[in-house]
Amino acid sequence: MQQHNYNSLPMHWIGDYSGKKALLTPNLESIYDPATKARYTYQQVDERASRVATWLVDTLGLKKGSRVALIARNRMECIDLFFACGKIGAILCPLSYRLQKPELQDLMQREQPDVIFVEDLFAALTGADVLPQPQPKVVVFGDGASDYDAILATEARDVCVPVALDDPFLYIHTGGTTAVPKVCIVPHRQMVWNVFEFLLMSAGGDRTKELVLFPFFHVGGWNVFFCLFMRNSLAIPLRQFDAGQIIEMVQKKKINRLGAVEAMLQMLKAHPQFEETDWSVIELITTAAAPCSNETLQPFWDRGIATNQVYGLTEAGPSNFAFIPRIPGMDHIKANSRKVGTPFYCCDYKIVSEEDPTQSLPPGKIGVLCLRSFHNFDGYLNDPERTAKTIDAEGWIHSGDLAVCDEDGLVSIVGRADNMFITGGENVSPEEIENALRSHPAVAAAICAGVPDKKWGEVPVAMVMLNAGTTTDEASLRAHCKNLLAAYKVPRSVAIEATIPLTPVGKLDRKALKSWFAAKSA
Amino acid sequence: MQQHNYNSLPMHWIGDYSGKKALLTPNLESIYDPATKARYTYQQVDERASRVATWLVDTLGLKKGSRVALIARNRMECIDLFFACGKIGAILCPLSYRLQKPELQDLMQREQPDVIFVEDLFAALTGADVLPQPQPKVVVFGDGASDYDAILATEARDVCVPVALDDPFLYIHTGGTTAVPKVCIVPHRQMVWNVFEFLLMSAGGDRTKELVLFPFFHVGGWNVFFCLFMRNSLAIPLRQFDAGQIIEMVQKKKINRLGAVEAMLQMLKAHPQFEETDWSVIELITTAAAPCSNETLQPFWDRGIATNQVYGLTEAGPSNFAFIPRIPGMDHIKANSRKVGTPFYCCDYKIVSEEDPTQSLPPGKIGVLCLRSFHNFDGYLNDPERTAKTIDAEGWIHSGDLAVCDEDGLVSIVGRADNMFITGGENVSPEEIENALRSHPAVAAAICAGVPDKKWGEVPVAMVMLNAGTTTDEASLRAHCKNLLAAYKVPRSVAIEATIPLTPVGKLDRKALKSWFAAKSA
Repeated sequence: MQQHNYNSLPMHWIGDYSGKKALLTPNLESIYDPATKARYTYQQVDERASRVATWLVDTLGLKKGSRVALIARNRMECIDLFFACGKIGAILCPLSYRLQKPELQDLMQREQPDVIFVEDLFAALTGADVLPQPQPKVVVFGDGASDYDAILATEARDVCVPVALDDPFLYIHTGGTTAVPKVCIVPHRQMVWNVFEFLLMSAGGDRTKELVLFPFFHVGGWNVFFCLFMRNSLAIPLRQFDAGQIIEMVQKKKINRLGAVEAMLQMLKAHPQFEETDWSVIELITTAAAPCSNETLQPFWDRGIATNQVYGLTEAGPSNFAFIPRIPGMDHIKANSRKVGTPFYCCDYKIVSEEDPTQSLPPGKIGVLCLRSFHNFDGYLNDPERTAKTIDAEGWIHSGDLAVCDEDGLVSIVGRADNMFITGGENVSPEEIENALRSHPAVAAAICAGVPDKKWGEVPVAMVMLNAGTTTDEASLRAHCKNLLAAYKVPRSVAIEATIPLTPVGKLDRKALKSWFAAKSA
Repeated sequence: MQQHNYNSLPMHWIGDYSGKKALLTPNLESIYDPATKARYTYQQVDERASRVATWLVDTLGLKKGSRVALIARNRMECIDLFFACGKIGAILCPLSYRLQKPELQDLMQREQPDVIFVEDLFAALTGADVLPQPQPKVVVFGDGASDYDAILATEARDVCVPVALDDPFLYIHTGGTTAVPKVCIVPHRQMVWNVFEFLLMSAGGDRTKELVLFPFFHVGGWNVFFCLFMRNSLAIPLRQFDAGQIIEMVQKKKINRLGAVEAMLQMLKAHPQFEETDWSVIELITTAAAPCSNETLQPFWDRGIATNQVYGLTEAGPSNFAFIPRIPGMDHIKANSRKVGTPFYCCDYKIVSEEDPTQSLPPGKIGVLCLRSFHNFDGYLNDPERTAKTIDAEGWIHSGDLAVCDEDGLVSIVGRADNMFITGGENVSPEEIENALRSHPAVAAAICAGVPDKKWGEVPVAMVMLNAGTTTDEASLRAHCKNLLAAYKVPRSVAIEATIPLTPVGKLDRKALKSWFAAKSA
């Protein structure tokens, strides 16, 4: 027997994703960009990526392992860079434009980009006060003329290098469970196996037309796009969520599937044209990030649209579970709307005791969800300690999510084992917000938690205790947070009290904080 | 970074292929068996496999790495055993019922099965004169009552074990380039990545209904079946090729795709009902094993059926290339009918010089085709020397096939670098036939080659030189071969001559033999 470790063996097809599609189905339409009304075949997508890759190598001298940062909405340039990085084995580092300068500065310092591509709207985020040393080259692009035009005019040559499935492809930052956002190392293996899972889960279905609504600074955005691209579906990236634009596309029958978080569905429902629109073109709405209420789904069910919930996390997948109907009809779908269903085909899972993670729990018992697959991530950048806590010796990723399996093998997510909560699809760590509040000169101690919200799932609220002899007010504290944190992390309410709730052993008692706010608003 | 060698990490989903499908789509119809008119959902397929797996473990004591031999036509019992072996990590060893006892004896001796399942028609092939020592248990099954009924009545329990993608799944014998048939080690990795390739190549297509015509003692039979199974298509295994049965299915719109070798298409065309049949239900015919002549394809083209040619070998895939139309219309398909097209998405290839395999050749130059992918096989059983000649240090499989790439990136297979030829889809080694002839007491020397045949692609012919003072005739020599070789390996003609053609350095000159036969039949 002669067996290579194939995951670490560089191959030509790995990374050259657009090139392989251009060889197989050059003339098939792959992407429609509604902002510019442009359409791209696989050959045209590859042509752009090849030009950008050539420029990165010949002009900037990038090579395997170089880092390419990106701050932009879901634009065609992002897709160029995704495939260009693949071709040359560089690592794409998308950064959220919702982040504040201190957060960005910290991430850039850790990711050490060789070049930063930024959409002109966000050019201020790449000022000298943010960039790491030595300062990387900054390329600004937008709807007007820019340096990017010259990059796209580069004469392409073959700059592809063999890449291994175990080589890193993306650095994706996620809200951490402590103050510091984590940077997930996403190897090619993870992205490619995500595609396989998607192909297996959607096996034998038609070529679809689908929106890419999740932003490209989340792994979910890339996952949706890459799966559609590999499946020969038409991918339609939206620069940002726009209910009116989506309804127009439904009316013109330009899409037939939708992936969304609850808040997006609520905004669609609230749109003045929702009622008069013929929704029959939409065959499936997939919801992600957090369970969607029946209240939100009902208007879509009323229009005969099937829905399903998927579950994922950047560290494993992202996607790992989905509810697939077993019997026809909406009743079956409605009855299971709060379940994430069954694990994807190539994904092991187990539910273990919170107290003793070596103990697997039977159906009916709530415990921590653990996942194992080829789409495991490869750890947190420069953080071996946290990585070792997340991926164990048998390859299990400990998700931190609490789950329970029913007798039919269908799984539901019931909460977080740690303190993190999710607001509008974004993971938020209360510790990060507490740190921001504590950096205010008047604040002695701070505590934060997520409380239920009809639109966003949960929203952050906080309580602070002031230093003796100082004064401040809620508006000042929120303004202080706004300078340090993305808007969705700024607490909706900040109560100023003489003490903050602590557990008997002196730890922050976030449960008590939630009860306090619940009592207050009751 | 924390990275497992995921290919060698045992996981629960690997091997439990029917179990995972039963969880996802329990009620979807997966298999239709036209011989018994039985239909099986994914849950029913899994139920049978679980019972057989439980019996293998509890009654025979089989475990990970045990070998399960199988001699049968394409029956449901084969599928039971395929999935049962997957669940318990055993190795399925399908053996051709076309083999003669000495061939079977040799293979069994090398594969050392723990149990042999044999269809009653072929029970004579598992006599005491064939079985290896110590004699494995033999289970005979067929259409009547048999021990297999009790196996299927076993109460199933969870006997699944975690299996790694690098663990062996099948031992597949192929015609060797020397006298000894080779046994290919086919790991789970190979079968699973074949599915991914198939899903990528057929992305965005409908759920299809397809025949499994290739026998289950070839990797191609399992590959077709497993891909259909994983893609949620309806798989219809035929016990053996039957033109009338296929035409009936076309008439009743029970199938919409077909994979076949040239001889099968010729037999369909020759069927009395071919002309009156409405073929519009068939959307694609895929041909394999060897290029199909336009003459054979024309009647299908005339009926508007698209065709494409795929290319593969047990050692790599099996499937690695396919022609995918780039522009609509039959003219494009006809113009490229002799090409195997583009490599599959996850497959590297190169064409290297016959004289210097380190030298890659540009388009237009004929050389040896080399392939590299995750669906590489893992070598020949107990034959490290031949394995090392086939898989090189960079993971390239040297196919031995001569190929050429055109300027559009489309590849054609033009012959064999070694002496092997293909008859009716079966690889045949002239050396094996020469050895059989030489074992005849009258034969001093023998030479064999494949010559063109309209129906089978090529057929074997031979020439012998007799020992001084002995006599024999063609009929006796062919009868002698029939006792030792599968029917398709028995030479059509055996010429008895005073000398046989040799090259200047004294090697067998098979080219000269081909010319001799060509001249004779001209």
